[in-house]
Amino acid sequence: MPNLSSTVTSLRASVFASINARMRSLSTPPICLHIGDTYAVPPHAARWENMDLRAPQYYRYSHPFGTAELLGAVGDKLRRENDIPASSDWVQITCGATQALHCAVHTLIEPGQGVLLLAPYWPLFGGMVRCLGAESLEVDCTGAGLAQSLQDAYRPHVRALYFSNPNNPDGRVYSRDELGEIAAFAQRHDLWVISDECYEHYLYDDRRHVSIASLPGMAERTVTCFSFSKSYAMAGHRLGYAVATPAVAAHIRRFANHTVYNVSESIQRAGAEMLNLAPEFVRSWLPAYARARDRVERTFARWGGVKPQGGAYYFLDLGTPERAWELLERALEAGVVFAPGAAFGESYAHRLRVCFTCVDEPTLDRACAILERLD
Amino acid sequence: MPNLSSTVTSLRASVFASINARMRSLSTPPICLHIGDTYAVPPHAARWENMDLRAPQYYRYSHPFGTAELLGAVGDKLRRENDIPASSDWVQITCGATQALHCAVHTLIEPGQGVLLLAPYWPLFGGMVRCLGAESLEVDCTGAGLAQSLQDAYRPHVRALYFSNPNNPDGRVYSRDELGEIAAFAQRHDLWVISDECYEHYLYDDRRHVSIASLPGMAERTVTCFSFSKSYAMAGHRLGYAVATPAVAAHIRRFANHTVYNVSESIQRAGAEMLNLAPEFVRSWLPAYARARDRVERTFARWGGVKPQGGAYYFLDLGTPERAWELLERALEAGVVFAPGAAFGESYAHRLRVCFTCVDEPTLDRACAILERLD
Repeated sequence: MPNLSSTVTSLRASVFASINARMRSLSTPPICLHIGDTYAVPPHAARWENMDLRAPQYYRYSHPFGTAELLGAVGDKLRRENDIPASSDWVQITCGATQALHCAVHTLIEPGQGVLLLAPYWPLFGGMVRCLGAESLEVDCTGAGLAQSLQDAYRPHVRALYFSNPNNPDGRVYSRDELGEIAAFAQRHDLWVISDECYEHYLYDDRRHVSIASLPGMAERTVTCFSFSKSYAMAGHRLGYAVATPAVAAHIRRFANHTVYNVSESIQRAGAEMLNLAPEFVRSWLPAYARARDRVERTFARWGGVKPQGGAYYFLDLGTPERAWELLERALEAGVVFAPGAAFGESYAHRLRVCFTCVDEPTLDRACAILERLD
Repeated sequence: MPNLSSTVTSLRASVFASINARMRSLSTPPICLHIGDTYAVPPHAARWENMDLRAPQYYRYSHPFGTAELLGAVGDKLRRENDIPASSDWVQITCGATQALHCAVHTLIEPGQGVLLLAPYWPLFGGMVRCLGAESLEVDCTGAGLAQSLQDAYRPHVRALYFSNPNNPDGRVYSRDELGEIAAFAQRHDLWVISDECYEHYLYDDRRHVSIASLPGMAERTVTCFSFSKSYAMAGHRLGYAVATPAVAAHIRRFANHTVYNVSESIQRAGAEMLNLAPEFVRSWLPAYARARDRVERTFARWGGVKPQGGAYYFLDLGTPERAWELLERALEAGVVFAPGAAFGESYAHRLRVCFTCVDEPTLDRACAILERLD
């Protein structure tokens, strides 16, 4: 057969592929804390069985940008919650934040250019950059001195910077001052900023979420990607959106149209219904997520790691790759699955990621009890 | 702001963008024959209101390749209907055939390589090639001498060949002999074949659909893309699939995972339900589509064009770009919308595309009556 594309063949298998094979060899199904999800389900009115989807339009193509209803609701939410002055023409509705990020990468970056990834980072983003034939440059952000780390990592071919806030996998919530440092750096070097805000509502200890696009001069150089998967418990719907000034959004829209044509109108109807109920829904679930974070913190304190400020994960620090791998193996044998830290950047093989929102509290309790018996 | 990607900014606005602006200026909504869709809706058991989607799994992430249920059903269909020896590991479930084609382009082709597009062709495919930074080379296939046309268009940097069968926009159904010529050409030059078979069931006058991947030696170098939008009246679901040997499918799967993560499990459940009912559903609708084709043929004979062998479109031939544009304008003023031929390749400005399956028979009658009064 002919050769395949060298960029796509450079993709690594999913971090979960090796784990999945191991899981199948276990005699009883383990408790899976390696995937990022929530056990919540959307409120009554936004559930499939309560949607009225009898109209023929739900079997037809829909507008490539998104339905007017959902674009309007998303615009309202962005102005109200994110302090981003977005109207409908700033928004492209996407098949999850994954498609929003895929579109941002291809619209902003060219093959051969560099992208700074504030590490540790969501693994698929690194793959998106490789698919394009661009170079990802990891910036370790676990220590102090964010501005200096960014400056040290900068190279002349760098065109963009990616980070998630709150961060997957370590739960870091960037303060307004820290975002100001990132913004100043991006402006000094004329960089695009790709801001992944999937976990915008997963905040603990009274922390607040700030969108970098709301900082002075930043909307013009930022594409912000949001998801219905986390805050609204709709991962199964594959619904998200990319936000940028209309001049940039126009190109994101063309690329998005060439990747999936449009997002299902049924899915968008459910998303619009959800947005009506969202503030109360988010408020109602936060205490449970905070309790879950505290529960795993008690179990994990013996191994090490930083208590997450936000997000859905605890990023365990075992000190060495050998100790991390050993714990991953022993937890798996005992029936609890973690994700290996190496997936989240080159320097994190000594760490493990654990999702604390993907199983209900009794199940998480059971997992913690199993882990506490390990030694 | 920084520069955008030059490949994405090279994308043209959708063919429909200018039409949409004109449509908004009309005093009464026109009859839209410019978009490819069907007025059919899926049978009872596959409609939203009859699906049982109460389980929590419908709000969770699902397997990136597709659900076991749908992968299995698609494999059965491919062996039964397409003579492609596919098992589940040949298939990636996608967000419409659009995503299947997007994945095929990025998996098989590199920037700077050439792709032969058998013209006239589906406009978005040309855009996908441009997004990648590859070169599209159009091969006019409206005349005789397919093998010679292909040979004349070949250049050493060509890596792949794209065609749709039945063809959008001219309804050409490739015979087994013609597919043999394409296959021999692809094998001689070691090319990938991207076969778009969205209209596989839209066949008239007892024509049969043959998948090029079923020809000897072709499965290894072919990615075949299918859709639930046309045959199964599920354009609103955005559901399709890419089919290739497992060695190729493994890479398509990785790329697909980086573009949308996975397709909604609710959508896949509806698709699996539909596949159970599909053969009877397809048989029941074909007579109506054939009547619609005959109806527009009677109206369009005065202007010129070839009676479509398959597909959903009549590709009117007005002789000159001026006459085509004049008819498009006059039809629009009278309340009927066509798509301009220039969207389907560089040499087709003298043509217009008309979809005859997107409105019901009384509405199509009304459109034809309007057109017959023009002159």
